[in-house]
Amino acid sequence: MQVPAGDLLKRIINPSDLKQFKEDELKQVCDELRHYIIDVVSVNGGHFAASLGTVELTVALQYVLNTPYDQLVWDVGHQAYGHKILTGRREQFHTNRLYHGISGFPKRSESVYDTFGVGHSSTSISAALGMAVASQYKGETDRQHVAVIGDGAMTAGLAFEALNHAGIENSNLLVILNDNNMAIDPNVGALKEYLTDITTSKPYNRFRDDIATVLSKLSAIGPDAFKIAKKIEKSIKGTLLKRSNFFEALKFRYFGPIDGHDVEHLVKVLKDLRDIPGPKLLHCITVKGKGYALAEKDQTKWHAPGLFDKITGEIKKTKYDKPQPPKYQDVFGHTIIELAEANPKIMGITPAMPSGSSLNLMMKAMPNRAFDVGIAEQHAVTFSAGLATQGLVPFCNIYSSFMQRAYDQVIHDVAIQKLNVIFCLDRAGIAGADGPTHHGAYDLAYMRCIPNMTVSAPMNEEELRNLMYTAQQENMGPFSIRYPRGNGVMVDWRKPFKAIPVGKGRKISDGEDVAIVSIGTIGNEVVKATTRLNELGYYPAHYDLRFVKPLDAAMLHEVFRKFRCVITVEDGCIEGGMGTALLEFMADNNYQATQVIRLGIPDRYIEHGEQPELWAECGYDAAAIVTKVQSLDIKCNKHTIAS
Amino acid sequence: MQVPAGDLLKRIINPSDLKQFKEDELKQVCDELRHYIIDVVSVNGGHFAASLGTVELTVALQYVLNTPYDQLVWDVGHQAYGHKILTGRREQFHTNRLYHGISGFPKRSESVYDTFGVGHSSTSISAALGMAVASQYKGETDRQHVAVIGDGAMTAGLAFEALNHAGIENSNLLVILNDNNMAIDPNVGALKEYLTDITTSKPYNRFRDDIATVLSKLSAIGPDAFKIAKKIEKSIKGTLLKRSNFFEALKFRYFGPIDGHDVEHLVKVLKDLRDIPGPKLLHCITVKGKGYALAEKDQTKWHAPGLFDKITGEIKKTKYDKPQPPKYQDVFGHTIIELAEANPKIMGITPAMPSGSSLNLMMKAMPNRAFDVGIAEQHAVTFSAGLATQGLVPFCNIYSSFMQRAYDQVIHDVAIQKLNVIFCLDRAGIAGADGPTHHGAYDLAYMRCIPNMTVSAPMNEEELRNLMYTAQQENMGPFSIRYPRGNGVMVDWRKPFKAIPVGKGRKISDGEDVAIVSIGTIGNEVVKATTRLNELGYYPAHYDLRFVKPLDAAMLHEVFRKFRCVITVEDGCIEGGMGTALLEFMADNNYQATQVIRLGIPDRYIEHGEQPELWAECGYDAAAIVTKVQSLDIKCNKHTIAS
Repeated sequence: MQVPAGDLLKRIINPSDLKQFKEDELKQVCDELRHYIIDVVSVNGGHFAASLGTVELTVALQYVLNTPYDQLVWDVGHQAYGHKILTGRREQFHTNRLYHGISGFPKRSESVYDTFGVGHSSTSISAALGMAVASQYKGETDRQHVAVIGDGAMTAGLAFEALNHAGIENSNLLVILNDNNMAIDPNVGALKEYLTDITTSKPYNRFRDDIATVLSKLSAIGPDAFKIAKKIEKSIKGTLLKRSNFFEALKFRYFGPIDGHDVEHLVKVLKDLRDIPGPKLLHCITVKGKGYALAEKDQTKWHAPGLFDKITGEIKKTKYDKPQPPKYQDVFGHTIIELAEANPKIMGITPAMPSGSSLNLMMKAMPNRAFDVGIAEQHAVTFSAGLATQGLVPFCNIYSSFMQRAYDQVIHDVAIQKLNVIFCLDRAGIAGADGPTHHGAYDLAYMRCIPNMTVSAPMNEEELRNLMYTAQQENMGPFSIRYPRGNGVMVDWRKPFKAIPVGKGRKISDGEDVAIVSIGTIGNEVVKATTRLNELGYYPAHYDLRFVKPLDAAMLHEVFRKFRCVITVEDGCIEGGMGTALLEFMADNNYQATQVIRLGIPDRYIEHGEQPELWAECGYDAAAIVTKVQSLDIKCNKHTIAS
Repeated sequence: MQVPAGDLLKRIINPSDLKQFKEDELKQVCDELRHYIIDVVSVNGGHFAASLGTVELTVALQYVLNTPYDQLVWDVGHQAYGHKILTGRREQFHTNRLYHGISGFPKRSESVYDTFGVGHSSTSISAALGMAVASQYKGETDRQHVAVIGDGAMTAGLAFEALNHAGIENSNLLVILNDNNMAIDPNVGALKEYLTDITTSKPYNRFRDDIATVLSKLSAIGPDAFKIAKKIEKSIKGTLLKRSNFFEALKFRYFGPIDGHDVEHLVKVLKDLRDIPGPKLLHCITVKGKGYALAEKDQTKWHAPGLFDKITGEIKKTKYDKPQPPKYQDVFGHTIIELAEANPKIMGITPAMPSGSSLNLMMKAMPNRAFDVGIAEQHAVTFSAGLATQGLVPFCNIYSSFMQRAYDQVIHDVAIQKLNVIFCLDRAGIAGADGPTHHGAYDLAYMRCIPNMTVSAPMNEEELRNLMYTAQQENMGPFSIRYPRGNGVMVDWRKPFKAIPVGKGRKISDGEDVAIVSIGTIGNEVVKATTRLNELGYYPAHYDLRFVKPLDAAMLHEVFRKFRCVITVEDGCIEGGMGTALLEFMADNNYQATQVIRLGIPDRYIEHGEQPELWAECGYDAAAIVTKVQSLDIKCNKHTIAS
């Protein structure tokens, strides 16, 4: 839904239009931009609190910089709605995150002002440094390069690696630390505490002030004291100012902390910084959700609240007459507690996704057994490996697309040593409105080539519970369980645990000529398809493979002996995925007579949209499966089950 | 070759035997241990300089700690030879890195004293923290957990993520920073400069000393000055000491720097630290190669020198009558310079492997266009992506197994944005004596599921040059080129460049009934095999696929139309690799009559040994291929090429 913009905002089509305003008009621009974001997001949905926190930064940066010549990289991109609105996309902003609408993240193909595509965190310093070094190489000495990164994103190793390199390159790089004390959940870790110290008690600045006062007093005492004062000053200049700050230790010039909501002051500081060469960091204190009282108060809830009434703050929830199935993440969150109550070895680990994974339930119930380690997927996995060496059984919950960050740790620290770490891969398959950076497309392919790894996916909530129960038994070794974003299919999901034999699939329905083999929750689309096909007189069989590794050889022998055509359905990439595992089984067992049709995410990047829209686009929702079966030369309607 | 141990060393079977010695005897133990390492490595080979630098640390740690109850994690493991010798493996040490011998790295399956398997760097703090948190959970308050990590390894993001988490856990963790200013090559980055500042000019300590002197002088001046002095002291205590150090910013208690070669002092310090709870870091200054003069002087060369005469220092090289083919890494190193001379867009990036990748040649020839970014694979890739957004063409050279560290960055920062970054994956396939952590087994599988990615492998030096030439052309998008450790096959390799059409394979030799399709340099084993098979009267055809993605459809149609059996040969994992890509092609194109046999690295971890030994073990060296062809039901000796 399109909403009207304020008087000043209306006059901004491109960032250059901002320059027409006087500095004292910028506050009003900020107010209008903030209201515009509230107006549009409340009726269209999307990420909310992060962009409210960067309104002044966005306006000040575009006012001072000469974009797109000057290059601005937003880390993660949750906070870049203001940026989008000021850079030619105000009119499209109501299509944000919708199928065929604009992306919720900066994206190079969408705008020249989007210098680097984001979605995953902590890439901005590396990317901006690359741009800055390129400018240096080309002799573009006047070009500015700015990375805006949150304190949460700063906990990731990638950001540190980039700081460590940038500190010794003499390129023109400004890192703006957007310090709001939050990731999606409250930020954690030593660096966060350090930043909080600087910000709240300000001992660092106070110390500097103290020293200045003391020195002036000393000088007044007499020549001896003056000499001493000079000596202290020299030491301080030589040592303290260089090295008393974390970022200065990494050879950045540190400025701040300053108020990230004072737009005029920001403009002044950014203008000053423009003329200082080399790597520098500006520490801005901002409030996530700034300007929307409820969001300031509960920042996690308002990170991406969905639709809401902007006046009352009531978040709109679809009303149901009867109980609905839970989210898979909540099945995980409740089940790990149940399991941990019975098995004292179980621990829970999340890299900065307590609310996204629902591990926050366990963190509350068993605080000494559940850990948020920050945006640090690599460490989450190797830390889990360390726990597992001591006989503990860690459930390490990481979104499928974020697990890409810890691939080496999965292989090198867990799988080679055959440690019993359970990987719960949430948001596996098409993730929806977050788009290509967040789709969990590759995990079946990149996990199943790892020796010692069990690779599984539940078809529903009960199966998820039973796979979790199975995985935490003794000596299971590395065990991965993938499940998607969103809700399950069972209202009555809290059944007693049953162990599942590792590598054992199950037959969902019998049939003739054609078998459909699915893995994971997309199997429910297959159930819909077979129901519809039965109505149409087609009788394909349906098997739920459950385990991509190890494969259920007995079941697959049945399938390849009995059926002339096998359709594989997975919510994951076709290249190297589950369907491919079946082709390997065929080749290794000399089955040559069966035709195999693999349905899954094709070999291209799938844009954002609702999951069902994208399943349809990729050709593996129920309707597409029906069409595919109907189109076959082999017609499974020639027979009946009874024949 | 077994060598005799010194008098004290002989008496040490397990670390507990160390305790029989007085502290003033430890220096002799160190001397004997150092000589033993020199004696054994000079005649058997292996990593050298790193372990010489940690002799005193190793002895002091084992003297003070109560291992294996107390837990000691060595980062990377290059420096752990002394550890192996003192922990029950002195008698086996001469089999180090040999086929069926002990591993060159700590390994859990080898010894209870090896608490965590390593090989890749920067995992130790995460792992030791996991152990420490487990102890805390179990109430083992007396248990010590120590991670020994080099300053090079400290540049990796994983180490920072671990520090950031450890700083807020109140567990019993001691990190020993083994600061020798080196990775394999000299360490780089801002943190390294910071550590050097601390160590060499010691301004931090000097400042502390200065302040103390000044305060005492001030107090002498009079009551006013005394008040001022107290105020300064308070500020210093509250701020400077807490926060003036990088590690203290991360909530570690920092101790040092101390001399890492003074074993008695180390023992004293370690005893003191044992009683201090919480996270703490001991900064030890060591010299890589300590005690062997030549190694101290050229530490990169003596990282792993091969066999040498310990007296003269002459490194033994096999003498050849005629010129030998170059290493693939040198073909890369020389070729990138040739290409960069003609194409000003080309840049070179290595994460801490200048000498291992031979990018050091370009770093010397074109210092503003070649970058060592530290042990920071993630940053290397995203930094390359940043360069590529500016129209530059970065060659990002990362060993295949280390590329696992940057998998997300390859997908998220390069491939989604279709940026022209060229990944040169050295050490692809079986890597040899470094063993399972270093085999580049998975890259074909994990790369080929990525949309937009070109996945290639040259069969020889000329092909490597031409693929590099091809990849640096305009608009090629992400392009990966894998090649192995070791020497090529062409003495006369420096031929004029020829572009290779992307996705175009080549026929090496024609044949009957059976086709062998290979990818990469293992194709040379296939050439040997076909030569032998021809002598035996068998005539398989041989195709070099060159590209796993995109596939050469025309060539594969020919193969699947013409041959009843296809054997695929790759120096990579069978699950999901090149052979599997051919199965997908078959399924997608409805080829059902051809039998496909996939040879490659099987679904288990392959231990260390020489490459030919391991190819034979995996069943894809020339002899195994000959045997495989002979064993087929389809006998390609029934016909002749002419028939």
